Amino acid sequence: MTKELNVTGIGNAMVDILARCDDAFLVGAGVDKGIMQLIDMDRAVDLYGKIGPAREVSGGSAANTIAVIAALGGSTAYVGKVKDDQLGHIFAHDMRAIGGVYETPLAPENDPQETGRCIVLVTPDGERSMNTYLGVTEHLTADDIDPEQIAKSEWIYLEGYRFDGPESHAAFAKAIDAAKGAGTQVSLTLSDPFCVSRHRDAFRKMIVDGVDLLFCNRAELLSMYETEDFDAALKTCGSEVSILACTDSENGAYVVANGEITHVGADPVDIVDATGAGDAFAGAFLYGITHGADLATCARMGNLAAGSVIAHIGPRPEADLKALFKDANV
Amino acid sequence: MTKELNVTGIGNAMVDILARCDDAFLVGAGVDKGIMQLIDMDRAVDLYGKIGPAREVSGGSAANTIAVIAALGGSTAYVGKVKDDQLGHIFAHDMRAIGGVYETPLAPENDPQETGRCIVLVTPDGERSMNTYLGVTEHLTADDIDPEQIAKSEWIYLEGYRFDGPESHAAFAKAIDAAKGAGTQVSLTLSDPFCVSRHRDAFRKMIVDGVDLLFCNRAELLSMYETEDFDAALKTCGSEVSILACTDSENGAYVVANGEITHVGADPVDIVDATGAGDAFAGAFLYGITHGADLATCARMGNLAAGSVIAHIGPRPEADLKALFKDANV
Repeated sequence: MTKELNVTGIGNAMVDILARCDDAFLVGAGVDKGIMQLIDMDRAVDLYGKIGPAREVSGGSAANTIAVIAALGGSTAYVGKVKDDQLGHIFAHDMRAIGGVYETPLAPENDPQETGRCIVLVTPDGERSMNTYLGVTEHLTADDIDPEQIAKSEWIYLEGYRFDGPESHAAFAKAIDAAKGAGTQVSLTLSDPFCVSRHRDAFRKMIVDGVDLLFCNRAELLSMYETEDFDAALKTCGSEVSILACTDSENGAYVVANGEITHVGADPVDIVDATGAGDAFAGAFLYGITHGADLATCARMGNLAAGSVIAHIGPRPEADLKALFKDANV
Repeated sequence: MTKELNVTGIGNAMVDILARCDDAFLVGAGVDKGIMQLIDMDRAVDLYGKIGPAREVSGGSAANTIAVIAALGGSTAYVGKVKDDQLGHIFAHDMRAIGGVYETPLAPENDPQETGRCIVLVTPDGERSMNTYLGVTEHLTADDIDPEQIAKSEWIYLEGYRFDGPESHAAFAKAIDAAKGAGTQVSLTLSDPFCVSRHRDAFRKMIVDGVDLLFCNRAELLSMYETEDFDAALKTCGSEVSILACTDSENGAYVVANGEITHVGADPVDIVDATGAGDAFAGAFLYGITHGADLATCARMGNLAAGSVIAHIGPRPEADLKALFKDANV
């Protein structure tokens, strides 16, 4: 059966505020380097007042992933909540402009929060340190999940970050139920090592119960299995999901399936801004798997897309990914 | 007498919405290529719905100029109106983050308009076509002009675009009066050939009455003097202002002062996005003139800054202009 949509992603709908700074600024401003930290509106206002001139671009981890799939020509939908404010309009415009379906109801006007935003501070080494004010995107509920849309999708893609909200567990459960009942496969990204530490048990249960494809990076995998033994973690996790795709920075990625671990190396890239690298990897991998590529090729596509995104400031690809893949014969 | 501020700029406070498109899109969407066209909110919404994914950055012609002066280490102030909305906060943040003074009162909440924005469409040849919804920035009045701030400035810089508003003539007159009474010099940019055709007589009167330094490009100068004879226009204009700085795209710039025309060539640059090139020229020129540079060096600085801005998407410099000037021995 051919389904109408390749992938429906569910995640935090955010606008990124991207600014450069040096390491001393991070220390002075109390920002932990390289991770995603949740902040409230007061902290967002305070931190924003301290940073230099910035640019605003639509972000959100799963939304970035969906943007990559759409850029490659895949058919997509996205579920994530914004408000009827200027940043919400920017996010919705960019989501629809890529050609995907985006119909999540706006947060009501009386919601005291605004559209979520992420202050992304990029240091000269290309590392990004994220400061996320969730705003209304935290208020995604099971009501926002449309089982029919999920049934129309070959895959759903769940963003681990979205677990940071009171009703998100129910929303994810509803999405997984809808998927399982309709032959839709389930993928999940662990998002961030500290996100894993906040939700380890819930993630573990989801993985064992019904995740077909798990995305993570080395730090997230080690956090998930509370070990320093990477090989052991790959093996354990590989026995719990059908496919594990674990990125490992400049070392490329590991794919584990049917008890076999395959390493797929990445070409060296000058890192300008690491924002969105993992998201792009997942997007290209999902594009590959929904377009008949074998798993090693999916990982190669993932490495290429990630390499393209980290070569410039901003979380979504600016280069022509289709042409890039063609040149690389994938 | 040393004044506290090098330059106070007055102009349209805008957030730019930058997107790439091809020439066919411009034709299909009814956008005139290469110029600035004023649009209303309905048109802004319609056009925004048609363009691809975009990025948002603070813009506004005089604001970009002020950002260049500040980036070079000059002391600046800016006057331009935004509203207490998310785009207004972005503009104000970026203006203050460069280190300049920005204290223009916000438009009141009951103003039916929003913060102004400019949909900038960048074609593969690097040309930018601007679609400006002025919003509240049109509501700058003489009340927003602080004569004391102007008296503290060595120069004021008036943006021709800002003449597109009911009370702007009075605001500019007040600013010029304050300048003349305090030994502050007056500079003006003609902004755009179609802006010139809308305000030719008023601009001409301002030039003859009291502009010390006029910025324009070739097309604007020809429009101003309603001629096709560039040399004649340079001479006529040069006899009406103390200093004329006229840019001529890849051919660099002409400076006219004391009856002498000096050509200052520019190094070749790959044009990615022409947005902000003229603004950057004016900013670097004003930095030069307030820091003891001769006029030819001011023009060279202007060419270098313009070349830096057109090498990337976005209207404000991203490279280290100070280092660039040092390398070029200016």
